[in-house]
Amino acid sequence: MKTVNISEAVIRRLPIYLRFLVHLQNMGIKTVSSQELGQKLDINPAQIRKDLAYFGEFGRKGIGYEVQYLIEKIKQILKLDQIINVCLVGAGHLGHALSNYNVYQKDNMKIVAIFDADPQKIGTKIAGLTILPVEAIPETVKEKKIRVGIIAVPAPEAQKVAEILVEAGIEGILNFAPVSLRNTGKVRIHHADFTTELHSLAYYLE
Amino acid sequence: MKTVNISEAVIRRLPIYLRFLVHLQNMGIKTVSSQELGQKLDINPAQIRKDLAYFGEFGRKGIGYEVQYLIEKIKQILKLDQIINVCLVGAGHLGHALSNYNVYQKDNMKIVAIFDADPQKIGTKIAGLTILPVEAIPETVKEKKIRVGIIAVPAPEAQKVAEILVEAGIEGILNFAPVSLRNTGKVRIHHADFTTELHSLAYYLE
Repeated sequence: MKTVNISEAVIRRLPIYLRFLVHLQNMGIKTVSSQELGQKLDINPAQIRKDLAYFGEFGRKGIGYEVQYLIEKIKQILKLDQIINVCLVGAGHLGHALSNYNVYQKDNMKIVAIFDADPQKIGTKIAGLTILPVEAIPETVKEKKIRVGIIAVPAPEAQKVAEILVEAGIEGILNFAPVSLRNTGKVRIHHADFTTELHSLAYYLE
Repeated sequence: MKTVNISEAVIRRLPIYLRFLVHLQNMGIKTVSSQELGQKLDINPAQIRKDLAYFGEFGRKGIGYEVQYLIEKIKQILKLDQIINVCLVGAGHLGHALSNYNVYQKDNMKIVAIFDADPQKIGTKIAGLTILPVEAIPETVKEKKIRVGIIAVPAPEAQKVAEILVEAGIEGILNFAPVSLRNTGKVRIHHADFTTELHSLAYYLE
């Protein structure tokens, strides 16, 4: 499928399309035009058509996109048609919020293990999962075939946790700690940061 | 400064540059090239040069960008050289995480008020702020000149909260609830979603 090199910007927009399409599906809507998508998502409709056209001919003139079909296709492109096991390191407020959110979503990327360094938290439960000690990461990652790690620990601990995750065989990291991680090149690291969304919002204030 | 219409994608990358430049500054680094920026941020250096060139000539051949100067310029572009007061609606785990994070950051966008609907939470404190009832939103927004609202309430309540914020005179909303908000066109709405970052990560797994 990947005949051309797809830019990161395109890949980052696909989940946004997916989220909105699932929303439409939940409302019972069967088809949608790129105009409607663009208007709701504040993205140029031509951009949406171009993004999707990298992967095939999904729309039909005068009808638009079939919601159900496009959801399946985007899931395939993003490899979300498979189960991807995820672990979470850090059971603070953010870790709690992420776990509860993940349980709420019907998603193939599931948090299947939660780790924390605090002995008081170990053994307690969040969203049905018992919190394990950080030392259990290598064993648990192998046992549960975990491929992605979410880092939700304080900034000073994030680099250490990233190294433990990489060592354990994780392929991708989503980092919520407000710090840049040194990448060894072995894994894909995405950075989630509340501040960037907030800062880009400031630009649009009058 | 805005002689051309700058695309949203550019505006969304500027805070990412800013975050990394502040990181460099904290490490005592004075200059940086677009190559170094690109490598660390996984963005094409030509893209970075083009993004910045929309706003002026900030770099010098053979030297690159002066970190301190570029930080100031990006803050100006994003209008972050002014204080922007922010309120938070929802004092659950996510609200806690956001408040603590905001206190930790040296930032001109400050959370100055927190609201919740739960009578048990009202009057208690997070990050030095006393939680106020949702009914106090209109008055507090005016009094504290709050321009941006962060929504961190459960999905079924998000639309109602958005309407209250818009009614109160808020100019921009950052929505963390996993639901699309109907936009009246009066305000700028950005959607923060853990899932989109996680989903775009899946694409890069082997």
